[in-house]
Formats: sequence, C-alpha cells, structure tokens
Amino acid sequence: MKQPKMTDVAKVAGVSPTTVSRVINRRGYLSEKTINKVEEAMRQLDYRPNIVARQLQSQRTMTIGILVPTVANPFFGELTFKLERYFFDAGFKVLIGNAENDIKKERLYLQQLLARQVDGLVIATHNHQQQIPEYQNTNMPVVSIDRYLHETIPNVSSDNYAGGRLATEELIRRGAKHIIHTDSIERFNKRDYLRQRAYQDVMKEHGLEPITYKIDFDSRPELMNQFFNRIFDEHPEVDGIFVSNDMDAIQLLQVARQRGMTVPSDLQVIGYDGVPTTTRIVPELSTVVQPLDEMAKTAVKLLQKEIKGEKVTGSYKLPVKLRVSSSLK
Amino acid sequence: MKQPKMTDVAKVAGVSPTTVSRVINRRGYLSEKTINKVEEAMRQLDYRPNIVARQLQSQRTMTIGILVPTVANPFFGELTFKLERYFFDAGFKVLIGNAENDIKKERLYLQQLLARQVDGLVIATHNHQQQIPEYQNTNMPVVSIDRYLHETIPNVSSDNYAGGRLATEELIRRGAKHIIHTDSIERFNKRDYLRQRAYQDVMKEHGLEPITYKIDFDSRPELMNQFFNRIFDEHPEVDGIFVSNDMDAIQLLQVARQRGMTVPSDLQVIGYDGVPTTTRIVPELSTVVQPLDEMAKTAVKLLQKEIKGEKVTGSYKLPVKLRVSSSLK
Repeated sequence: MKQPKMTDVAKVAGVSPTTVSRVINRRGYLSEKTINKVEEAMRQLDYRPNIVARQLQSQRTMTIGILVPTVANPFFGELTFKLERYFFDAGFKVLIGNAENDIKKERLYLQQLLARQVDGLVIATHNHQQQIPEYQNTNMPVVSIDRYLHETIPNVSSDNYAGGRLATEELIRRGAKHIIHTDSIERFNKRDYLRQRAYQDVMKEHGLEPITYKIDFDSRPELMNQFFNRIFDEHPEVDGIFVSNDMDAIQLLQVARQRGMTVPSDLQVIGYDGVPTTTRIVPELSTVVQPLDEMAKTAVKLLQKEIKGEKVTGSYKLPVKLRVSSSLK
Repeated sequence: MKQPKMTDVAKVAGVSPTTVSRVINRRGYLSEKTINKVEEAMRQLDYRPNIVARQLQSQRTMTIGILVPTVANPFFGELTFKLERYFFDAGFKVLIGNAENDIKKERLYLQQLLARQVDGLVIATHNHQQQIPEYQNTNMPVVSIDRYLHETIPNVSSDNYAGGRLATEELIRRGAKHIIHTDSIERFNKRDYLRQRAYQDVMKEHGLEPITYKIDFDSRPELMNQFFNRIFDEHPEVDGIFVSNDMDAIQLLQVARQRGMTVPSDLQVIGYDGVPTTTRIVPELSTVVQPLDEMAKTAVKLLQKEIKGEKVTGSYKLPVKLRVSSSLK
C-alpha cells in the first residue's frame, strides 16, 4: 500500500493542504469542525505526519531525558511522575533512563542523548560525577536534582540543612535526650551532607553529643537490619533517631518492633522525604517532607530557560515542612 | 564556533572518516584502542553524530513509548523499571507517559507517538479503551500489559485465574471459613475479572459462599478506610480476606489494627502483586507474586517481533507464586 500524503488527506477531508498542515501544527484559527474533519480523514487513511522530519528542520526534538537511579524507588517514581507532568504541560515528552548505579549505563545514555536526541536533561542519578566526563564539558541544557554535577549546571533540592535542623530540634523539643542520626553513604561525590551537618550543629547548640552512623544508599534489607541492630546494641540508651530517608526509617521501625521496643514511648523516629506513596503505606512515620511538586516545577522552568539560551547556574533550595505522626510523642 | 564534522574527528583521532562512522554505529571489527581514540576526539571537539538525521534515513527511532497510569505507583514503577532495562539491552530508549486516568492525556500521547516518534508502544493504562479509537486502527506495533485493548494487540499478564485460585485455596487450607474478596473497579472495560472468578469458583467448590466487595482502583486513603470498616461492620465473622492488590491489602492491615484485630489469629490476609518495594516496606503481607521480570521480558520480546514485521496476537499468561508471610497462620 502506498503511504498516504498530505494532499490525500486534504482531498478526503474536503479542505486545502494548507489547512491540513495547520491542523497538524495547530497553527492559526481552526474551527472544531475543521479539526474533526481533518483528523477523521487522517485516521481513515492512517496518515501520520512525519514528526521526526519536522524536528530535524527545527533542530528541536521537544524531548527531555531524565536519568534516575531507578523509578522502582518510590522517591524517584514520584519525582519522575511530577517531572513528566510538568514537561508534558510545557509540550515536551520525556525519555527515562534508570542508571541503576551503573556508571557504564549512565555514560551510554549520556552519549546517546547528547547526540541531539533530546533538548535537555534532568539528572538525579547516584553515580560518581567525577567518573562521568560528559558532565564536565557539555553544551546541552542540564538541571540536576539534589546533587552537584558541575559549576555550570544548576541544582534543585529541598533545603537539606533546614530539614536536618527541623528534625533534630523537634526530637529535642519532644523530650529525646539520646538522639542518633543515620545517613546514607552516596556513591556520588557528596560534598556537603547538609542533613548531617544540621543535626550536628543543633546537637552541639543544645550541649548534646552528635552520633552519626552511615550505610550505603539503598542497601539490601538484611544489611539494613544488621545496621540498625548494631546501633541499638551499641547505644541501648537511644530514645530518638533522625533517619536521612524514609525507606531506611521504615526498616528501622521494623527492627525496633522486632526488639520489643515501643514507638514513640521508647523511641521517637523522624525520617526524610515524605513521598505520598510511602506515607500512605506507613502513615505512622513522622518525616521531613520534601516539596517534590515544587522541585519538579522549578527544574522544568530552569531547563526551559536553558533551552531558550539563557544562562542558569546555582543552587535552588526549596522549603521543607515537618509531618508529625505517631512515631513522635 | 563552527560545528565539528566527522572529518575533523577523523583528523584528530588519526583514523579515516570511515572508521569514525564505524565507531559511531558500532559496525564491523573495532579494537578497544580505536574506539577510545575516536571517542576521545569526539569529546575533545564536542562532536555529536546527528542521530535524528540517521533515524530519518532508517525510518527507525529506536525508541519505545510506555504508557502507565503513573510511575509513582510502586507496581507501575517496578514495571517501567524492568521494561526500560530490557529495552535498553535491546538497543531501545524509552519514552514514558503517565496517563493519570486522563483519557485526553492518553489520546494526546498516542496521537503524537503514533506520528512516527516511536517504533512501538507498551500500554498499561487504566482508561477505557472504547473511548480511545487510536487502539482500534493502528499499524503501530503495540503490546498491552494486563488489559485487553483490541483483538490485534497481544496482551501480557500474570495468570490471574491461577493466582485467584492459589490465594483462596491457601486461605481455606489454613483454616479460614468466612473468606471475603475485595477487587478494584477498573476504569477500562475489564471483561473478565479473573482473580474474582477464581475466588468464586474455589469457594463454591468448597461449599462456601463467595462475597465480593468492589472499590475504585487507587481510591483515596479515607475512602479505602471507610470501605474496609464497612466490610468488618457488615461481616463481623470474617476470618480471611483475599485483596486483589497489595496497596489495598496494606490499608486493610491498618484498618484491622485500628479495630484491635490481630493478624493472623483473628484475620488472615493475602494480597496480589508482590512488588519488591512494597514487600520491603510491609514484609508481613502474604501475597500472590506477579512475575514482573518475566512479564517485562516477554513484552519486550513480543514488541521486537512486531517491529520486525511478524504478526503477534493473543494472551500470554505467566505463572504466579505465593509469598507466605506472617499475615497467614
């Protein structure tokens, strides 16, 4: 069968080829009736405007690449969902890559996406940026989420320092005296660990001794169990824990329960993230809520500016809030 | 600055332009050393092969569209993660769209993606397919996940009937006498509800009366709470519940706990899905595990066949297994 042409569509719809083109590109005034006639004719002939060819002309793909560790993690699932929503509203489609803590896979994605397949990138991966030279010398518009990539690349995050202060101050205010902080060791070069620094500052301001334990991000459940059991063995006096992410905090609640501890009377717990899905599954967890919706909106806006040719750099720290639930007294 | 050409890359790398082209397209024998030299030269010059132009020549985009309700839901997050992994291994990139139970958004995606932006589609949305004419008359390769779209479109799912039998038989075997089933009302035209049918068949085979309650898929937490409270009010004798998805089952466990019921001694519970993330968060939930990895692999294989021009239709039902945990006696 011969591929139908725009003139065939025009004939069937009883309009001019210019009108067909205007319907396809949604250009100029068009009545609902004309749009329907042309779309019906397109459907009838199975005519598809060649968008790839048009993109080549405009040098735009109207597509954004998003790289995350994995959308299977509720935090990155929610982030990807929100980014896609706002990019869609802005007329962009979204290519998703799960870098899976695999530097080779991240580099392969970057090399291919940088080859003009996308107009811009949002990066939220956890691999070590020093081992990914593509970030050092790209002309591609890029925004990173909660990680520093390069001085030319703007970074959007929750206000990690304010969040760390909020959590620690709340535990103290509610009577906890022996507060421990657990943080993840990131595979990327995390220069600041601001949630931890805030915890340490608040503890010192109150004359309390800060104690931080660290474990690899997204460790296997058995390792997490050992990790929290070790903390309880080494610090039987602990009565408050600020955990740097909710997935870890949920496992901590399980370990505490297994050891016969009662939350919050024996132990008060605050996590970090506050993604709707995990909050729905574990509503008892108090947590510092990241403004994921605002973060996604901001990332989309910044990337659009870069795509238009504006120079954008710096850090965009968005305000957090505390969600108080029954894991606090 | 002038855009660098392939001949510039060849000069810097000290190889012929043909070799540069072979490296870009990974064609023919290439030593590690040659690849490194060429890639280094490409980086140095910030040279990007124009993939869009090459795609236009080949009529292939090497991109697949995946439409789900939302990747923020752990089931679809995991499914998307697995699909992306196997498509990546097969050389494809993945465009993701969250249809969000919004028929207009799903149709907009379809119209744009059908316009040659992708080589094929995987559809796992929950909107009513009768209201989406694009599925009725497309030449585009499509595979659906756990939902019937059209007789020409192959469908991959877990063996829902076997899963429903497995759950119900297990509850009976472990002594439950008053077993209720809760199922979701889907927005799409779900013709079979096989998990429910299997529950009914097994109950009747054992001389027990089947009782099914239904609620909209992905309802708000407050509605879910009312829903489960109503079941307990109307059936105080209930001692076993088979819930058609884990997110609902988790909320049921919360309601049972609030009412002072003890799981499993007062009430045994089996869910459906068994996604690693939810299992990690709520390890006590027994559930029918969908073979998501196999389902993703199968969908990728089928779609590749369709893209090569093979005709593929029919249903592919993959075997489930039971995960027994402390929500069962």
